[in-house]
Amino acid sequence: MNVCPFVKSKSTQALRQLSKNSALTTQARQCPFMAAALNSKREYSSASKPVNATAASAASAASAGNSTYSLKAEHLKANQVDLSSNEHGFDYQGFVNNELNKKRSDKSYRYFNNINRLAKDFPRAHLAEENDKVTVWCSNDYLGMGRNEDTLNAMRKTLDKYGSGAGGTRNIAGHNRHAIKLESELAALHKHEAALVFSSCFVANDAVLSLLGQKLKDLVIFSDELNHASMIQGIRNSRAKKEIFKHNDLNDLEIKLSQYPKNQPKLIAFESVYSMCGSISPINEICDLAEKYGALTFLDEVHAVGMYGPHGAGVAEHLNFDAHLKAGIAKPIDPTVVDRIDMITGTLGKAFGTVGGYVTGKSNLIDWFRSFAPGFIFTTTLPPSIMAGSSASIRYQRSTLQDRILQQKNTRYVKNNFVNLGIPVIPNPSHIVPLLVGNAADAKKASDLLLYKHNIYVQAINFPTVALGEERLRITPTPGHDSKIADQLISAVNDVWNELGLARMGDWANQGGKCGVGSIEEVPHIWTDQQLSLKDSDLNPNVVDPIIDSLEVSSGIQV
Amino acid sequence: MNVCPFVKSKSTQALRQLSKNSALTTQARQCPFMAAALNSKREYSSASKPVNATAASAASAASAGNSTYSLKAEHLKANQVDLSSNEHGFDYQGFVNNELNKKRSDKSYRYFNNINRLAKDFPRAHLAEENDKVTVWCSNDYLGMGRNEDTLNAMRKTLDKYGSGAGGTRNIAGHNRHAIKLESELAALHKHEAALVFSSCFVANDAVLSLLGQKLKDLVIFSDELNHASMIQGIRNSRAKKEIFKHNDLNDLEIKLSQYPKNQPKLIAFESVYSMCGSISPINEICDLAEKYGALTFLDEVHAVGMYGPHGAGVAEHLNFDAHLKAGIAKPIDPTVVDRIDMITGTLGKAFGTVGGYVTGKSNLIDWFRSFAPGFIFTTTLPPSIMAGSSASIRYQRSTLQDRILQQKNTRYVKNNFVNLGIPVIPNPSHIVPLLVGNAADAKKASDLLLYKHNIYVQAINFPTVALGEERLRITPTPGHDSKIADQLISAVNDVWNELGLARMGDWANQGGKCGVGSIEEVPHIWTDQQLSLKDSDLNPNVVDPIIDSLEVSSGIQV
Repeated sequence: MNVCPFVKSKSTQALRQLSKNSALTTQARQCPFMAAALNSKREYSSASKPVNATAASAASAASAGNSTYSLKAEHLKANQVDLSSNEHGFDYQGFVNNELNKKRSDKSYRYFNNINRLAKDFPRAHLAEENDKVTVWCSNDYLGMGRNEDTLNAMRKTLDKYGSGAGGTRNIAGHNRHAIKLESELAALHKHEAALVFSSCFVANDAVLSLLGQKLKDLVIFSDELNHASMIQGIRNSRAKKEIFKHNDLNDLEIKLSQYPKNQPKLIAFESVYSMCGSISPINEICDLAEKYGALTFLDEVHAVGMYGPHGAGVAEHLNFDAHLKAGIAKPIDPTVVDRIDMITGTLGKAFGTVGGYVTGKSNLIDWFRSFAPGFIFTTTLPPSIMAGSSASIRYQRSTLQDRILQQKNTRYVKNNFVNLGIPVIPNPSHIVPLLVGNAADAKKASDLLLYKHNIYVQAINFPTVALGEERLRITPTPGHDSKIADQLISAVNDVWNELGLARMGDWANQGGKCGVGSIEEVPHIWTDQQLSLKDSDLNPNVVDPIIDSLEVSSGIQV
Repeated sequence: MNVCPFVKSKSTQALRQLSKNSALTTQARQCPFMAAALNSKREYSSASKPVNATAASAASAASAGNSTYSLKAEHLKANQVDLSSNEHGFDYQGFVNNELNKKRSDKSYRYFNNINRLAKDFPRAHLAEENDKVTVWCSNDYLGMGRNEDTLNAMRKTLDKYGSGAGGTRNIAGHNRHAIKLESELAALHKHEAALVFSSCFVANDAVLSLLGQKLKDLVIFSDELNHASMIQGIRNSRAKKEIFKHNDLNDLEIKLSQYPKNQPKLIAFESVYSMCGSISPINEICDLAEKYGALTFLDEVHAVGMYGPHGAGVAEHLNFDAHLKAGIAKPIDPTVVDRIDMITGTLGKAFGTVGGYVTGKSNLIDWFRSFAPGFIFTTTLPPSIMAGSSASIRYQRSTLQDRILQQKNTRYVKNNFVNLGIPVIPNPSHIVPLLVGNAADAKKASDLLLYKHNIYVQAINFPTVALGEERLRITPTPGHDSKIADQLISAVNDVWNELGLARMGDWANQGGKCGVGSIEEVPHIWTDQQLSLKDSDLNPNVVDPIIDSLEVSSGIQV
């Protein structure tokens, strides 16, 4: 008899047994997790009667009314544990408690603040109680798209028509027009051939990097030391050899690249905007090195999409600002930096205001991810409403410069005023405003004071998200954070710095500087004054409601 | 000078350089991915001028108008690649094309069907064109909750009030009342102490299993051979030792468990309902073995939550049906099977109709996952509307038996009629109706015929999702698939079986049977006739709109 592993009658016999066996409830005991924790002496009991494990014997045993499971004596090997010894099992709960205690001891145990951001009162939120309101200054809803009416209307309409969920994986009932449209929009945004959507960019980074490392024999991955946890995890899971280069350090990267033969597969993994310090990578120069040494380039634009470039495609687009501005939805005639990047990953959950992640690149590379990456294949598609809302966000942001410009202006306003007060802004060219505190306890205190005394929410960022001694407050102005509420923030922060006696720029300078505070010259913003003076009328009209062809690769390429 | 790695002025110098350098556009070259693929001879060019890589020299170089990056000669090592050799880089595109060609050759290349499920016309969907309608018979929206008005209203209301996205990770601006409520609902559903929500259950399984294996020294993971790809990935990424046991085979599991000392940490990872064959695991008996050998139990109830047990908590709840029915929202007085399971993972994207995944267990274990799992920590929270909709779904399904009962009745109807016609249903005790085809080409043809001739969508399931030779159609009746549309399906399938000359039960029996088809006795369903006769009035009234306390662990436990 050919017994397929996919069905074994033993399981059904077990069920039959269970439904007949009303004594089950009283037979059930504590879970091992708790039992082990209590360190109680646990004895083996044969009170419950599991069924026989082989299909044929289970069937016959069941018909004989005898379906007792027991391990056959011949399987008991010499090295088997002696169960009569009363030996204790592993103390799982003790282990977990110990791990948590260590986390409390080193002050890295996290309490989450209950922040309910109000769409109609952006950037305000309420805490646990609805009338307990605060201004949010640390959300990654960078452009306030979470309350954008284009996005919300697309979501409402799709919710009404197509329901709350996708109902399946992309392969089984979960592929639809919303996925196809979103992937087409993303490819068009980045002016790459194709795109693939994942549950999140954490998943996209993990899935793509781990697949590459697993499948490309002898791949060496060169990873910036400040890369995000998702990339670190993907690289780790790939089991490829990795070389970590110093943050944004072309010299160090080249030294490491030069150690390997040119025909050995290589990948350089880096970000455009690094989220905790706001630094920006030298993308074109990294591409130079990639070309010189024959490496793939993998660029995470999570903290840049929506916010940089004339159409919100990120820093890679920003580097050829004028060419893309002129071309609009089209590809510029001459090659640009985006053409040099093999994979761009991005998120829908920050500047685009929804949730999800993606990768863009050449069609066959995207098709390969689509066909082989477990993190894409074996998971439920994002809800149609999320995908439709994301497409609407992308289209909205492509057709206006004003949110990006206002965000940058608000950022400059906040940074300049902090600097004037000597509040230690870690200098950087992006929209991130990190304020150096320098220890975990004070960072938490400052955050708590802002929240409970000033009704301003700025999360403290502590180890392990940043290095010890570099704890900070991370402020993210949006287009909605105008000068009026910015003045409240600036005054409140100044008050907190006084109340806690926190170090100011001069103090850091006296110590020789830290994180760039008090030690280096002013850093220019990537958005130039000229770019900030642009109007939407400067955009190519082809960006308004463009027709974008569906990508064949989203459904599979017919040959 | 103390230079913090978080900001290096070189990046900003690079930007300054780039924005000044209008020649950049024409300097940019093709990405290595394409260049390598074309196998073109690529030469190193120093045309573009990346900036100096050290902060100090960059600053001075910039002020001198000279920020050219070049690798210093002393770093060039003896074993460095000779770039003047014209050696080719690795052919990435050739590699990818070859991989895709192999996939086309073995017929496992996938084309996704464009299926747009209509909330107001469930279980109907339209294809690419809106007037091209089909009946969907393979969605994992198992209970049709995707169009449930309680769920949709909760989502609409939350969308209006709180916007389209969470705007941050749980630690930074993305923690809110919706997350707290959902986790409280999930813990209450499973009668476990706590719960933690992830982007998906793929992520939950991967994150939880990989954390356990990475942190628990010497952990051995015992994994059912049919476990889902997410569990396989989590186990692989954990790098723990793994022992794969035969599907639902207690004997084989015990043989493997018995090889290790009792005090060595162990974990048994298994599912309740296996999605591709519909088999159900002997949960209580596996817990017996876990207790006997000191192992943690990890149960994936993804294909069971919402559908089994009096309140939709899954098969573990179903095994003590009467006790849970009587207790309602409360914990039964006597211990039950759910108390024996350390971790239950489940999904919000199938029977609950939205998207997302979770794990439940003891508070300190959940707190440990919350505090240490990168896949939880470093990702954007699900949108408030998704979490609110999920909570509404859980509450709805807890307070009615009728959807679960109707699903089972519809399943029986379909299975019985197929069997009467000799259509080879793979026998199982669950709501899954797998029809054995036996080869990839015929499974695809059958699926295509159903879709294009009969307007019925049933996805073909081929290798690697199922073993070669066990290709099948997988049908999932819902409460909305009444006898009228079931009769259309049954007639259409019978027609397809005739048209393609596919093997029927008798044919498989003559070959000695396969996957249980034609070879074993009838398998009883886990839902008994008595259970199917229950009315909502048999539920404990405490399940209707219960007040469920918030879990402290969702925000961090104050000590």
